[in-house]
Amino acid sequence: MSLQWWQGPCQPLDHVARGKAETRQQQLTKPAGSLGRLESLAIHLAALQGRERPSLDKLSIAIFAGDHGVVAEGISAYPQAVTGQMLANFVTGGAAISVLARQLDAALEVIDLGTAEPLPPLPGVRHLQVGAGTQNFARDPAMTLAQAMICLEAGRDCIQRARASGCDLFVGGEMGIGNTTAAAALACWLLSCPASELAGPGTGLDGAGVAHKARVIDAALALHRAQIDGPLQALIHLGGFEIAALTGAYLAAAQQGVAVLVDGFICSVAALLAVRLNPGCRDWLLFAHHGAEPGHVRVLQALEAEPLLELGLRLGEGSGAALAVPLLRLACALHGQMATFAEAAVAERPS
Amino acid sequence: MSLQWWQGPCQPLDHVARGKAETRQQQLTKPAGSLGRLESLAIHLAALQGRERPSLDKLSIAIFAGDHGVVAEGISAYPQAVTGQMLANFVTGGAAISVLARQLDAALEVIDLGTAEPLPPLPGVRHLQVGAGTQNFARDPAMTLAQAMICLEAGRDCIQRARASGCDLFVGGEMGIGNTTAAAALACWLLSCPASELAGPGTGLDGAGVAHKARVIDAALALHRAQIDGPLQALIHLGGFEIAALTGAYLAAAQQGVAVLVDGFICSVAALLAVRLNPGCRDWLLFAHHGAEPGHVRVLQALEAEPLLELGLRLGEGSGAALAVPLLRLACALHGQMATFAEAAVAERPS
Repeated sequence: MSLQWWQGPCQPLDHVARGKAETRQQQLTKPAGSLGRLESLAIHLAALQGRERPSLDKLSIAIFAGDHGVVAEGISAYPQAVTGQMLANFVTGGAAISVLARQLDAALEVIDLGTAEPLPPLPGVRHLQVGAGTQNFARDPAMTLAQAMICLEAGRDCIQRARASGCDLFVGGEMGIGNTTAAAALACWLLSCPASELAGPGTGLDGAGVAHKARVIDAALALHRAQIDGPLQALIHLGGFEIAALTGAYLAAAQQGVAVLVDGFICSVAALLAVRLNPGCRDWLLFAHHGAEPGHVRVLQALEAEPLLELGLRLGEGSGAALAVPLLRLACALHGQMATFAEAAVAERPS
Repeated sequence: MSLQWWQGPCQPLDHVARGKAETRQQQLTKPAGSLGRLESLAIHLAALQGRERPSLDKLSIAIFAGDHGVVAEGISAYPQAVTGQMLANFVTGGAAISVLARQLDAALEVIDLGTAEPLPPLPGVRHLQVGAGTQNFARDPAMTLAQAMICLEAGRDCIQRARASGCDLFVGGEMGIGNTTAAAALACWLLSCPASELAGPGTGLDGAGVAHKARVIDAALALHRAQIDGPLQALIHLGGFEIAALTGAYLAAAQQGVAVLVDGFICSVAALLAVRLNPGCRDWLLFAHHGAEPGHVRVLQALEAEPLLELGLRLGEGSGAALAVPLLRLACALHGQMATFAEAAVAERPS
């Protein structure tokens, strides 16, 4: 296969801006290191944004939604119709991410990549309808190569729109009944581990439900393994439309120089897939939280990610990332607005 | 001794409001429990505020500052003059908490309880000058009973002002070179453990400095132990003016029905002291973060506290609590503004 768009180079970090930010941190009126993780975050954002004092005023959130054929195997606690119902809830303002977007003054895009039952047009939703949900990967590949390419490009297009609007930080979210099963299957392939280590309750399976989900995933891995020669084929055989779009968005963000805040388990699997497709994108990915889904910690470890929050979240929709945005903004405000020892005439040196 | 003001009853929680908030949480358009800690926080705030949908619009921050005679023992990395210099930095807007107060639209009070060198009046600072710092508790009791009472009342007065202004949430902060030594000594007495388990680097001691600090604390505990018959005497012998004021503020907040968000190690020691003086205040105390000071985790355990953040913070000034405020506000916004399953016509029951 010829070179794909996502294999192109990612934006380099600005080491001059990073150096200036490091120097500034040392001059602020506080004991060195006393703001902990917020100091290194501000310095990293300076390197990403190419300015001594970064800012995250302009936040773009995009929710990618799609249905999953594997729901036919009885792996979700909720009916598949909820995917479409929640798309309406996102744009009418009643969903968690809708509330968070308002509170954070963020732009919110909602992208329908394909529900099992096609929806009537919803004002405010971009309906791409790549397919009537994915195929049941317990029997067939989840999607075609063409569908995967459309979804990856949908993520890229979203980043282009965000960047055109002056976006300082991108948050991707997902909605899709059954998508923890697809994400766990992908993670099993990417991390070479059995489903028992990564399958979790998702929206609310009991112990027997989780065991069944793990059996479905292990059987699918056995079915498809011979056809999977790399991360793109893993995505095609085991993934979901929204996972593919998130992967494309993360890759495009790194190529276009937009910092990303990654949400929970499903987004982290998309991030791991993105890093496998183009390792240069890793620097552009910040991680928001340790979620409650048991596979999340393993995926974060593989990414060498140290998320900011651990609150037992397992909602998705980008909600965990949105909740971490104020911390990043406050890290930037402290970095940019605190007085230096010289400005405040405070004794700098230990006695 | 006759009954003291802080021994009076704390405001009871509103169980009707709590019940309504619990019911509301179950009806919101998300899998039950998927917002993790934020759900129980919103419900607890409903019980504290006596309304189904709590809010934290009006935030009051007060910084209590005082010097410590024990600095003569060489237990701090910074010169004592920094306490006064930072008081000026707080009100001119260059300190971390000044930046955070602006970003959070909070009222910021700065209260000088007594610096070693009395300061010229600083516009915006309340100068109480209870003493020229505490006495060196390596030799003498840190303060008199009368000084302790004035400081406890200074905290109470601060809460009365906050409440009069309609405060929804109170954050106390502290500044005082040497105050991790006083806080560690108090914690050693309250938890009956040696200083080696609770003394830490504070603003930046090295290993030898921490060992010296622990020896100073152990010697002081040996010196004063026979005179300490309870938490008030522990405060008098080992505490600090700002620690006493924080303790008074926490006690008064619980009595007057103002929710409190507790900052780091020193504030948590004041909170533990408050709980020992009046156990009923515990319900009103929320805890913001696990700080980097090693004694903090032990104090939090004794309080059965589960802080929201763990970011390696060790600045004080109330900064760690301020950083957690957006999470509490977002928890309230989600609780109050998300649609219910019925409102959004989303399928509620698992399939």
